[in-house]
Amino acid sequence: MPDLLTQKQRAEQLPALTASGWAMVDGRDAIHKEYKFKTFVRAFGWMSSVAILSEKMDHHPEWSNVYNRVSVTLTTHSADGLTELDIKLATKMDVLYS
Amino acid sequence: MPDLLTQKQRAEQLPALTASGWAMVDGRDAIHKEYKFKTFVRAFGWMSSVAILSEKMDHHPEWSNVYNRVSVTLTTHSADGLTELDIKLATKMDVLYS
Amino acid sequence: MPDLLTQKQRAEQLPALTASGWAMVDGRDAIHKEYKFKTFVRAFGWMSSVAILSEKMDHHPEWSNVYNRVSVTLTTHSADGLTELDIKLATKMDVLYS
Amino acid sequence: MPDLLTQKQRAEQLPALTASGWAMVDGRDAIHKEYKFKTFVRAFGWMSSVAILSEKMDHHPEWSNVYNRVSVTLTTHSADGLTELDIKLATKMDVLYS
Repeated sequence: MPDLLTQKQRAEQLPALTASGWAMVDGRDAIHKEYKFKTFVRAFGWMSSVAILSEKMDHHPEWSNVYNRVSVTLTTHSADGLTELDIKLATKMDVLYS
Repeated sequence: MPDLLTQKQRAEQLPALTASGWAMVDGRDAIHKEYKFKTFVRAFGWMSSVAILSEKMDHHPEWSNVYNRVSVTLTTHSADGLTELDIKLATKMDVLYS
Repeated sequence: MPDLLTQKQRAEQLPALTASGWAMVDGRDAIHKEYKFKTFVRAFGWMSSVAILSEKMDHHPEWSNVYNRVSVTLTTHSADGLTELDIKLATKMDVLYS
Repeated sequence: MPDLLTQKQRAEQLPALTASGWAMVDGRDAIHKEYKFKTFVRAFGWMSSVAILSEKMDHHPEWSNVYNRVSVTLTTHSADGLTELDIKLATKMDVLYS
């Protein structure tokens, strides 16, 4: 089971995600971001890539889609909060988005 | 622009959807269903088929996914409520799920 | 049924596709291109976007994939050769690739 | 690196695949199957599920698609022939198809 991020890890790793649009979720140890695409076609292509990565990591997002927008929340259910898996998946999502 | 469903159309067409698990959303003229799959792999395969159909119909769902569950809300934004497009997409989703 | 491209249309429209890597197929009135991606994950994300567009246009590619490579052949079976549909789909594939 | 299947493993494991439509490829230590679906929409949904599994196994098919047909060849490039990975992926493809 992955460990919860320490305060030191949070101080080191969360600022880069915050800078790219991720924010802490109120009342949960989780992070959230809204992605916007030109079209539904591009949004779903990105979701397909992320779906493949998620299953490979065995770490899946909570995500919703309405047309060209995708809203993502990441947390590690087995650890009841943020772990390295969330940092890693968030970073990969951003790389695929850019 | 598609027309809102009449009371007659609702009486005729909604019962079949209700029987398969669709329900009216509180406070919105919209329908909602929770789909559950054996695995994330199957859930996302179904989502891919639905994504293709949605774009072809130019009618997209509000949907969210967590692991093997997909939650769908359908309404027609341009009509501010339920139209034939929602009945048609809901029916196609059910056919692909079965 | 879409019309075969005229000689004039070919002279006007094929050079842009040739410049981006498309080539005529030997012995068929068809065009072909090899796309290469960084990873399988990116290749399949692109294929998902293209799949959605193809179904919307009701015009589907002959395509194959091995890891990070996707090989595409386009022709219009109902016209037995190249039509505007092929030019349009090839152009959209390139836009999604870039 | 996975080992090539032994003669004993082949005798035990290939008959079940042969029965479901897989066949040895002429001149290669590889297996091949043609899948047919009702529609392109269903074909690509299946491909999306298989793509996710393939990346997770780090074992990818050689496959091509034309409308509602998907043609698959499996072999293990690093072993230069059939390994347990091919048996496993072929079996998973069949399960998702059924």
